[in-house]
Amino acid sequence: MSQKIKLGMVGGGQGAFIGAVHRIASRIDDRFELVAGAFSSNPEKSLASGKELGISEDRNYSDYEEMAEKEFIRGDKIDAVAIVTPNHMHHPISMSFMKKGFNVICDKPLAMNIKECEELVRTQKEEDIIFALTHNYTGYPMIRQARAMCQQGDLGNIRVIQAEYAQDWLTLDLENQPDSGGNKQASWRTDPSQSGSGGCIGDIGTHAYNLLRYITQLQPHQISAELTSFVPGRKLDDNAQISLRLNGGAKATIWSSQIAPGNENHLQIRIYGEKAGLEWCQEDPNYLYFTKYGSPKQKITRGGAGAISAANEVSRIPPGHPEGYLEGFANIYSDVANALIDKKNNEFDINKYHYPTVEDGLEGIRFIERSIASSNSDSSWINF
Amino acid sequence: MSQKIKLGMVGGGQGAFIGAVHRIASRIDDRFELVAGAFSSNPEKSLASGKELGISEDRNYSDYEEMAEKEFIRGDKIDAVAIVTPNHMHHPISMSFMKKGFNVICDKPLAMNIKECEELVRTQKEEDIIFALTHNYTGYPMIRQARAMCQQGDLGNIRVIQAEYAQDWLTLDLENQPDSGGNKQASWRTDPSQSGSGGCIGDIGTHAYNLLRYITQLQPHQISAELTSFVPGRKLDDNAQISLRLNGGAKATIWSSQIAPGNENHLQIRIYGEKAGLEWCQEDPNYLYFTKYGSPKQKITRGGAGAISAANEVSRIPPGHPEGYLEGFANIYSDVANALIDKKNNEFDINKYHYPTVEDGLEGIRFIERSIASSNSDSSWINF
Amino acid sequence: MSQKIKLGMVGGGQGAFIGAVHRIASRIDDRFELVAGAFSSNPEKSLASGKELGISEDRNYSDYEEMAEKEFIRGDKIDAVAIVTPNHMHHPISMSFMKKGFNVICDKPLAMNIKECEELVRTQKEEDIIFALTHNYTGYPMIRQARAMCQQGDLGNIRVIQAEYAQDWLTLDLENQPDSGGNKQASWRTDPSQSGSGGCIGDIGTHAYNLLRYITQLQPHQISAELTSFVPGRKLDDNAQISLRLNGGAKATIWSSQIAPGNENHLQIRIYGEKAGLEWCQEDPNYLYFTKYGSPKQKITRGGAGAISAANEVSRIPPGHPEGYLEGFANIYSDVANALIDKKNNEFDINKYHYPTVEDGLEGIRFIERSIASSNSDSSWINF
Amino acid sequence: MSQKIKLGMVGGGQGAFIGAVHRIASRIDDRFELVAGAFSSNPEKSLASGKELGISEDRNYSDYEEMAEKEFIRGDKIDAVAIVTPNHMHHPISMSFMKKGFNVICDKPLAMNIKECEELVRTQKEEDIIFALTHNYTGYPMIRQARAMCQQGDLGNIRVIQAEYAQDWLTLDLENQPDSGGNKQASWRTDPSQSGSGGCIGDIGTHAYNLLRYITQLQPHQISAELTSFVPGRKLDDNAQISLRLNGGAKATIWSSQIAPGNENHLQIRIYGEKAGLEWCQEDPNYLYFTKYGSPKQKITRGGAGAISAANEVSRIPPGHPEGYLEGFANIYSDVANALIDKKNNEFDINKYHYPTVEDGLEGIRFIERSIASSNSDSSWINF
Repeated sequence: MSQKIKLGMVGGGQGAFIGAVHRIASRIDDRFELVAGAFSSNPEKSLASGKELGISEDRNYSDYEEMAEKEFIRGDKIDAVAIVTPNHMHHPISMSFMKKGFNVICDKPLAMNIKECEELVRTQKEEDIIFALTHNYTGYPMIRQARAMCQQGDLGNIRVIQAEYAQDWLTLDLENQPDSGGNKQASWRTDPSQSGSGGCIGDIGTHAYNLLRYITQLQPHQISAELTSFVPGRKLDDNAQISLRLNGGAKATIWSSQIAPGNENHLQIRIYGEKAGLEWCQEDPNYLYFTKYGSPKQKITRGGAGAISAANEVSRIPPGHPEGYLEGFANIYSDVANALIDKKNNEFDINKYHYPTVEDGLEGIRFIERSIASSNSDSSWINF
Repeated sequence: MSQKIKLGMVGGGQGAFIGAVHRIASRIDDRFELVAGAFSSNPEKSLASGKELGISEDRNYSDYEEMAEKEFIRGDKIDAVAIVTPNHMHHPISMSFMKKGFNVICDKPLAMNIKECEELVRTQKEEDIIFALTHNYTGYPMIRQARAMCQQGDLGNIRVIQAEYAQDWLTLDLENQPDSGGNKQASWRTDPSQSGSGGCIGDIGTHAYNLLRYITQLQPHQISAELTSFVPGRKLDDNAQISLRLNGGAKATIWSSQIAPGNENHLQIRIYGEKAGLEWCQEDPNYLYFTKYGSPKQKITRGGAGAISAANEVSRIPPGHPEGYLEGFANIYSDVANALIDKKNNEFDINKYHYPTVEDGLEGIRFIERSIASSNSDSSWINF
Repeated sequence: MSQKIKLGMVGGGQGAFIGAVHRIASRIDDRFELVAGAFSSNPEKSLASGKELGISEDRNYSDYEEMAEKEFIRGDKIDAVAIVTPNHMHHPISMSFMKKGFNVICDKPLAMNIKECEELVRTQKEEDIIFALTHNYTGYPMIRQARAMCQQGDLGNIRVIQAEYAQDWLTLDLENQPDSGGNKQASWRTDPSQSGSGGCIGDIGTHAYNLLRYITQLQPHQISAELTSFVPGRKLDDNAQISLRLNGGAKATIWSSQIAPGNENHLQIRIYGEKAGLEWCQEDPNYLYFTKYGSPKQKITRGGAGAISAANEVSRIPPGHPEGYLEGFANIYSDVANALIDKKNNEFDINKYHYPTVEDGLEGIRFIERSIASSNSDSSWINF
Repeated sequence: MSQKIKLGMVGGGQGAFIGAVHRIASRIDDRFELVAGAFSSNPEKSLASGKELGISEDRNYSDYEEMAEKEFIRGDKIDAVAIVTPNHMHHPISMSFMKKGFNVICDKPLAMNIKECEELVRTQKEEDIIFALTHNYTGYPMIRQARAMCQQGDLGNIRVIQAEYAQDWLTLDLENQPDSGGNKQASWRTDPSQSGSGGCIGDIGTHAYNLLRYITQLQPHQISAELTSFVPGRKLDDNAQISLRLNGGAKATIWSSQIAPGNENHLQIRIYGEKAGLEWCQEDPNYLYFTKYGSPKQKITRGGAGAISAANEVSRIPPGHPEGYLEGFANIYSDVANALIDKKNNEFDINKYHYPTVEDGLEGIRFIERSIASSNSDSSWINF
């Protein structure tokens, strides 16, 4: 299996959530092999985690800097590193690995602030790195289809976009209940020193924003935001209402919340143009609802009648056999695999892939910072 | 059938939509009898319409002023008049009838501006009139239940409200296509001289706002709005995005649109509190979704297990036998019937009824005017 | 209002369910006026009910035979009588009124057995009576559309039909719990002397069968049935599984149950042909799902794009404004009104109306009896 | 990664569907490593497929018998073989590998007839083989939950089960259209010499039957069936209607069809007991609807509130992040992995695993054969 891509990982040790997701995603299409890692900031836990994952002893590192250095000098060095730590570590780890020429797959958000992001963007260019940010929801087949339909003009000019990403798991102040189950996740995600200046807007709002941009390919020029912390004592926002004025005249709103009981992972986007409307909901991702003005609503299904090549290319099984979150995530990994192989063969062409880039990451942080800035000036419209 | 309430009607002649709805609503529970009317501003059409409706010749009037006068001097005069004309006539007609002591059932919006509304409020008080505004969506049983559940604390303090009312019938500029079917409705509803200063915000946004206030009993203190006319040449807004800061700290948003393909009459409200969430959608009105934080989502059905007296009192048939828009509308008429009979018996008590009042109408116009004011000042927050 | 149709009613007194439904249905389109009645087999209750309904004293009868006789000799006699008693009285009351030349609207099932039905069919012909049986579900607009689509060949030859009508209210033995709320309904509906030989198959299964025949216009030639009484002590079936072999080669199954927790009034029909499939569910009656083989599923909505004249003619309000059970029921009454007026004008033509006839009633009883016969011979196929 | 289970595969070469599914399923939880295979009955295609899959040359076999023999003598021989060929090869391949002591994962149906099955059952016992049949739908977390809820008595005694598995892809006679896309699948699945005596009843009906047995743990004692071939020229049934009388008195029906336009992979099961009802649909597998008689319907979600350990143990990601078909399939593989490891450690206990066994496979073939027998005797009830 010599042709598999050699993957390293930083973060994602025992008890972590997103690291395990990355690993499954990397395996689904059998194009990656996890061969090295520094799985925790706690060296002991790091090594135990690596052992559990079957990493060979000499590539099971106790910290990421050691890993970057030692991998660098190996003949069979990793082709890419996946960074799945809490947010505040994304920048230093990315920098370490990029400086050694390693390609990067980084969980979102890209970094803690614009300055860090700009450095990453610059470094990615200088070092000619493949840098993929796992805004994974763009990997869903029906999202690929939605983008293609917008691009080919099925909706006409887009007028209105309603995006929302609502959860309920932070309805209570879990971060202050040391014994509760959701605790570890709640602690770092509501802590500015680990999460950055955005709470729910950074954790999930950026996903909605990225999805909006990905599908419509529209860019905002102004933003107005109202961020709120409803839970007493919470340091970051847990509810955000954002309005965007987009180039070309479209208007968008994004509602993001982590305190809305009855919403598990409700990411939804609805797009309305001069000629038609599209509706998609992450919890039922195999369905895309399309209504041409004056015609009945159509339920387009992954793999089914009405599904086009943009969707079918990233679909594995027949219609009615639901693919889910992990398969969507795997599609990002597949895109990266394509890019890595093309690069090796000197056939790299950024326009061929769909993975979110370091620039998308910068854009996401800009979204968070501009939201906070607007919210701090009483939701006034500010330039994006 | 001597005990039926004698109803008159102004507007609602041949080809009208909402007049026919009022008539059906008034018949469903058999408490009203339509005995008089001036059904059109066109005298000929008015008389023809009345004849078709079986109105006796002496009470089939060619204009509303004649009607007010002649009914006033009859021994068997009408108990109430239903006003179902285009918006700009609501005020003068209401004034004429109130001045003669007639009770009024008026379609929304109440009037063209705050000044008109205030005069109506004042007159209603002076003349001790029963004045019901048909924000009909408050008549749905599951809306009554939602209000009761909020009131009895099932949600805890309310934090976030997401209301939306989207349609698609004005996606094209129907008002400029003289031969198209939807034309007559499109013409007056997009014409400021007949509709007032609000377009979709007045036509449907006010319904969403009224519903929000009815269920939560929360009042806004500040508003920010972004109104847009997307269809070239349209004189009034066809898309509105509103944010509200409510007393007690809750935040609400209302999206209203008439250019969103795939939405027929999508009025939806979602309410999230400290303890639970509620979701309701007008197109499937017999279902109320309730999620207590930490428990599975429940589908509470009209008449079914989980339905409480507030809903059951305004429900006619068993669960699974869908009631719809007309039955909800009829519940407003039933409330008015109760009020009229109580008044005759000197048992009138405003707290016993659920029909929207003239004050609710004033509140609706304030919502429109404040939205426009905010939108005109670049969506800045202004006091409500 | 001289042109309204004068309606009498037998049954439907205080506490009854279906009588009130008939009255509302008769009022919705304002074509009937209830002027006479014998509302209960208990004379006292009968008179009290009539008084409450505003029936004038001289037409408020204490028993139906008196009513038939006295109405017969009036100049302003009723145009039709609605019979809404328990099943065992349908035959004698229908006979009494038909013999006097009165038109009949009778609740289903038509009678207690084939013999009674045949006498009714014969009498209807001899007396040239308009006889409508309220298999009300055929009144829904989207059912009208489904029938028209089948008729115009949108599905090609029909192959498979899956019909089901499931409820849960008889999960417990309510008929033996004298104090429980659902009691009165449960008592007579599970009592062979009042209900006939069919339990759930007669109460609701016949509706599914009628719907199947109405939409597809196919007739069975053989039937196999399995009837079960699951609740201990219950005298009639509470669950039925029926298979039909239809003329033309289609196969159908009907599942009917009143002991299926989670089903309120789940009447559903799915029809599959060589070219397309149709799906409809009574609890969400404004939607008809149509899938042309090889195309995405379409959601056709009452009044919306895709709705055809067969549906639009029996629709009152725009798409997205849900019509329900009562409006569907009212469509049967409207059909009857058309027939009655045509008859007066010598323009009666049975092909113009959609109301179920006395022959449909006979067909329904045949369905019950043949089901029981098959079930009693170990579900063997028997001729229909 | 020495501790991974070494997997071989027979079948599943280029262009095959289910082989790829097995491979993904085996990778998701990282417990298997595909190291050997004979991927096609065509030796050339077999080798090409293996090469593409990265199988090392010495374990890339051109036929399965060679594979069984050569693997048998290796020190690092495979731990199990996955058999993913057309149905008629399941028996000979299973026999070959079992005779050499290899554990087997076999796609369903188990074999072509009862006789073959019985030999497999006997051999599995004699050779003490772990034999898993991939009735994969039992791997879904909410199915595990449904079984646990039945087992712990949440429904009381079960009365009625409605199972259905409908597709539409064989609506046309694809098997006779050599150039069409669905062709290869259609050809062998409608060919008795490759598929066996059951058409849709074997292909998908057995899944529904297995699911019913798995969840309720009830066994039928009598069966009545009506099989039909609707498509002209088709050699096997494409629509089946089955009734079952189950031990304990419950009644079940299974509808299976491959000619129902609008159904992609509609596998649904509804179970009704004395106390509650359960509903689950494969196309939306993360939701289980539970209605306790007298309470509102609950939507229990995978990973969410209300999910119990039986479901949570086979769930990878949080609620609202949909898992799908491949993850359900992977759960069967995980069960097998547990069993294989336990066997190595002498801790094997059949009661600990949920994978369907060779006996379940025999039961599935019995279901097919008894269905055909009943259908051939005019759907009469026959003993199971």
